[in-house]
Amino acid sequence: MRVSRLLLVTLRDDPAEAEIASHKLLIRAGYIRRVASGIYAYLPLLWRVLQKISAIVREEMDGSGALETLLPQLQPAELWQRSGRWAGYTAGEGIMFHLCDRQGRELGLGPTHEEVITSLAADLLRSYRQLPVNLYQIQTKFRDEIRPRFGLMRGREFIMKDAYSFHGSEECLRQTYAAMDGVYRRIFQRCGLRVVAVEADSGAIGGSASQEFMVTAEAGEDLILTSSDGLYAANQERAVSLAPPAVPLPGGMRLSGAGEPLATPDATTIEQLAAGHGFDPTQVVKVLLLLARFEDGLRQAVVISLRGDQQLNEVKLVNALTARLGAAHGTLLSIEPLSTDLARELRQKEGIEIDPAALPLGYLGPDLEEGALVDRRGLAEPAQGMARGSGARLATTVLRLTDATAAALTAFVCGANRPGHHRVGVSWEGLGLTPDVVDLRACQAGDRCLHDPSQTLSAVRGIEVGHIFQLGRKYAEALEARYTSESGQEETLWMGCYGIGVSRLAQAAIEQNHDNAGLNWPVAIAPFEAIVVSASAQDPQQVSLAESAYDRLRQAGIDALLDDRDERAGVKFKDADLIGIPWRLVVGRGAARGEVEVVFRADGHRRDLPLDQALEVLISAITASRSGLGDSA
Amino acid sequence: MRVSRLLLVTLRDDPAEAEIASHKLLIRAGYIRRVASGIYAYLPLLWRVLQKISAIVREEMDGSGALETLLPQLQPAELWQRSGRWAGYTAGEGIMFHLCDRQGRELGLGPTHEEVITSLAADLLRSYRQLPVNLYQIQTKFRDEIRPRFGLMRGREFIMKDAYSFHGSEECLRQTYAAMDGVYRRIFQRCGLRVVAVEADSGAIGGSASQEFMVTAEAGEDLILTSSDGLYAANQERAVSLAPPAVPLPGGMRLSGAGEPLATPDATTIEQLAAGHGFDPTQVVKVLLLLARFEDGLRQAVVISLRGDQQLNEVKLVNALTARLGAAHGTLLSIEPLSTDLARELRQKEGIEIDPAALPLGYLGPDLEEGALVDRRGLAEPAQGMARGSGARLATTVLRLTDATAAALTAFVCGANRPGHHRVGVSWEGLGLTPDVVDLRACQAGDRCLHDPSQTLSAVRGIEVGHIFQLGRKYAEALEARYTSESGQEETLWMGCYGIGVSRLAQAAIEQNHDNAGLNWPVAIAPFEAIVVSASAQDPQQVSLAESAYDRLRQAGIDALLDDRDERAGVKFKDADLIGIPWRLVVGRGAARGEVEVVFRADGHRRDLPLDQALEVLISAITASRSGLGDSA
Repeated sequence: MRVSRLLLVTLRDDPAEAEIASHKLLIRAGYIRRVASGIYAYLPLLWRVLQKISAIVREEMDGSGALETLLPQLQPAELWQRSGRWAGYTAGEGIMFHLCDRQGRELGLGPTHEEVITSLAADLLRSYRQLPVNLYQIQTKFRDEIRPRFGLMRGREFIMKDAYSFHGSEECLRQTYAAMDGVYRRIFQRCGLRVVAVEADSGAIGGSASQEFMVTAEAGEDLILTSSDGLYAANQERAVSLAPPAVPLPGGMRLSGAGEPLATPDATTIEQLAAGHGFDPTQVVKVLLLLARFEDGLRQAVVISLRGDQQLNEVKLVNALTARLGAAHGTLLSIEPLSTDLARELRQKEGIEIDPAALPLGYLGPDLEEGALVDRRGLAEPAQGMARGSGARLATTVLRLTDATAAALTAFVCGANRPGHHRVGVSWEGLGLTPDVVDLRACQAGDRCLHDPSQTLSAVRGIEVGHIFQLGRKYAEALEARYTSESGQEETLWMGCYGIGVSRLAQAAIEQNHDNAGLNWPVAIAPFEAIVVSASAQDPQQVSLAESAYDRLRQAGIDALLDDRDERAGVKFKDADLIGIPWRLVVGRGAARGEVEVVFRADGHRRDLPLDQALEVLISAITASRSGLGDSA
Repeated sequence: MRVSRLLLVTLRDDPAEAEIASHKLLIRAGYIRRVASGIYAYLPLLWRVLQKISAIVREEMDGSGALETLLPQLQPAELWQRSGRWAGYTAGEGIMFHLCDRQGRELGLGPTHEEVITSLAADLLRSYRQLPVNLYQIQTKFRDEIRPRFGLMRGREFIMKDAYSFHGSEECLRQTYAAMDGVYRRIFQRCGLRVVAVEADSGAIGGSASQEFMVTAEAGEDLILTSSDGLYAANQERAVSLAPPAVPLPGGMRLSGAGEPLATPDATTIEQLAAGHGFDPTQVVKVLLLLARFEDGLRQAVVISLRGDQQLNEVKLVNALTARLGAAHGTLLSIEPLSTDLARELRQKEGIEIDPAALPLGYLGPDLEEGALVDRRGLAEPAQGMARGSGARLATTVLRLTDATAAALTAFVCGANRPGHHRVGVSWEGLGLTPDVVDLRACQAGDRCLHDPSQTLSAVRGIEVGHIFQLGRKYAEALEARYTSESGQEETLWMGCYGIGVSRLAQAAIEQNHDNAGLNWPVAIAPFEAIVVSASAQDPQQVSLAESAYDRLRQAGIDALLDDRDERAGVKFKDADLIGIPWRLVVGRGAARGEVEVVFRADGHRRDLPLDQALEVLISAITASRSGLGDSA
């Protein structure tokens, strides 16, 4: 390809719309253009990268015996209603774009394909002889993100490889899951990425086990916690660890389990309480009052108790609430702090009466009275004044959940449930409560590991590029996907699913491989492997030697670019560095002697060599590094 | 690939949902499954076909210098509002799926990409040095079809290759248009299709010239008219021809230009008038009364006069109305007969008063009085009682259009504008009308050709698989896509666009290549080129010879399938024929002698040969026919 025909438009300045390096570079180097929020045009250079990544994904997936297919992007609501996910994906924080067609039928734009593939499996899979089977596709997916950002990192339209496997037994599912783990590691390695596999939360996809593959990079949206011995790595959303030991309350403060009152004006935060009254945060039980909204209209007040030095892990909380109430009340649509503003809004919009004045915010204790927080009629019928169908109603009891760190304290400080007052020397017994213990704390760097308390966790940021799940039988049960076993029994299928963010992977590769001059692609996924540049477009000897080098590279099967533009050498070199072509062959003054310069983008190493030798070096280095096992010269 | 791992599910019976052969076969042979109306899952077999077609398309497009890209499927309404197409594509008969995102912004699901690419061109193209450029993509497109049908033929979600070229001059546009004509012919030839190129209507895409590529097949939705000398071929929507000569009215009936009244009860159709009163249909002027609705609320009564033996071509009418009124009143949303029912509906829904009793339907003359058909206030203000914004209002004049066949009559029969009466011996002068002549007639098989009246048109049905357009500057003007010319002037870009229906092409290939036993793929786009079948899965000698043949075919680069299922030979042969693999290698009783049978699917020709020789025949035939230039053995 000639640069003059490549529609190459590079920008000198960083675009205002971009925050992180990879996003800036994608725009500056002419790889993408924004069409709408989180929606991008993929220009020819990026398309070549995506094709190379897809080719590696296809080779490895096909090699594992998976079959490529293509499922529709438009999906009937009815399938998602059968799996119980329609409301969760379209209402509240739901991220599925959806529309009505001309017949008034609701359709969603696929963010994922469990429903479609499972209904297809129910149709196509009949016998154990057909199992296991693993179907995959490489396809544009859609998510109506609340905050699209960072270019292709969190877009509203993006390319995914998603695969779904079906099995006759959990054991067989585990085998394919393990095989896909290997396939994924090879794919990322071949793409030239440094990736960490971590334990992950399964989120809205569900299932019993899942693992994410993270490209480590400062700009990553995820926090990964890893043990120094390398035996444990998990997404913070899911991570478990030992909290630091608590500092016991001084003996004198431990006499009364009901607690001694303490006037604490202006101490509505743990920091203020610690600073003003000399308590260590580990001596305090911090109480959060939240309101959870469920699909069927249930509004549930939740009182969370945590040790004062700990933070709430919202993902763990969502999982705990879903586990307890999801089956009866449908999808958890939202969960938010029950502030006085929210109490007013609830009264106006949902007809739910919670007296804002009855909330001693900043001074809550684990034994906060139910009072205004429950339906006083004890019925949990739809609140008065609500439109039929919305059915919003307050639960008849408060749900109290206590993190293990708080539950383990035998004497602690906590709010007195009236403004300006705390209690000191409180025990759970003294409060008359038996803590309902749930792991709700966010692990942090520095925490000790569960598997070996002498190890500590350290944190690194990561970009999720892959996620594999053991789904179990959740979808197959909902969509009645069954097969006849060898013994003639009709049984429900076991299922796994396996995703790779193809467009995100391209940007993650840039985040891991760039410098001040521009991108620095791993050879295996570079849009072109080499670029031939003549220093002067006016010197016929240089031009002709450059043409000849270009032809010979192409004949050798190298994906080569020729910068044939009538620009200054400096401009051409800058563009070559900016767009990140791994190898550059410069035809300059040495052309008269038949000599050229070979430059390796990654380390800037340059050598003057006779053309033949230069081509040999280039071709053998490129061929060797295509496997993704290393880009060294 | 082994058949046991292919997820092959074939059906014995024709599916109830399918009407035409190719659709039935796609389902029966396990290529597709329906997910919703006009929305299909592409199973692994079809996906392989689509990949092969796409590879041919890519090779030819890349070879022509076009650049592959990928544009978003979600498109902001604002871009379509700038080009003036949003209303036409989303309201009335508009076929664009559209939705609101969580910020309340309107987005359309791309049925085509002129707006997106032109806004991108406005950003990226600055200088004549960058021109011409041709960008293409292979992508899933969406159309909310009024009547999705025939499987992939008219789906709501389908795969297109669409290309858009930009030029500094019309001459350069014409050159690329001609080059794309050649590229398209090669693509279809390589895919093994018999295709006719025809003059086409440009429809909602617009522009000055366009040509369609039609796969000839009985099940085609389009009617193609071709001259016997092969010099003329056009879609009926667009075709022109000479109508048969009219039979003159007998002299005695030609005296009065105003016409002699004739009582014609029960003669509301041309057929009844001809049968009951002895007129030849060519002696009659047939009058159609229609109502056109425009985007800005204008409701326009249209009186069409056609010679009695001619039919209205609706596409020509839409073009004529758009040409006359589109610039002032926006998109033509619909056009329909102005019946008494419609008149009532207009009163109820749009507040427009047309007295149903004032319409002498069945007895209309070209001089039908304006009467109830115009806004009597002469203002064409929004009708009373209408919601603000909808602005529906009746035009202040009737639009009268006359086809050349009617205009050419010097004395004719026509309705008397009162029920039960016609007039005989009418002339245009006698009616006091000067016909506003427009070509509105539908050409038919048997018509004489314009280019040579000794030639006649014959009709054949076709499936549109490609369409190329000279768009001119319509989109570039609307979206302000300009470049700086060599002389330093800022000029508007010229533009072409070029589409291929990739998924439709796959089904069209089946429509052209099938028999009672199943599909019969051209080698170049077959999911597999050869299938190896052992007659008995129990005979170790057969199994081992089959395995060896399969391995050797794959080593020779043949896309081979091995039917390793433990099924009867008949079942395996039937499936091989049904799924349409071009070559079959059968390992049967001859295995003991090292002999196999080679079968060519297209003609059923079979030969017994020693394995080595059989492989040689197969490999050389397949290699030769991959070019798509012929599948002969």
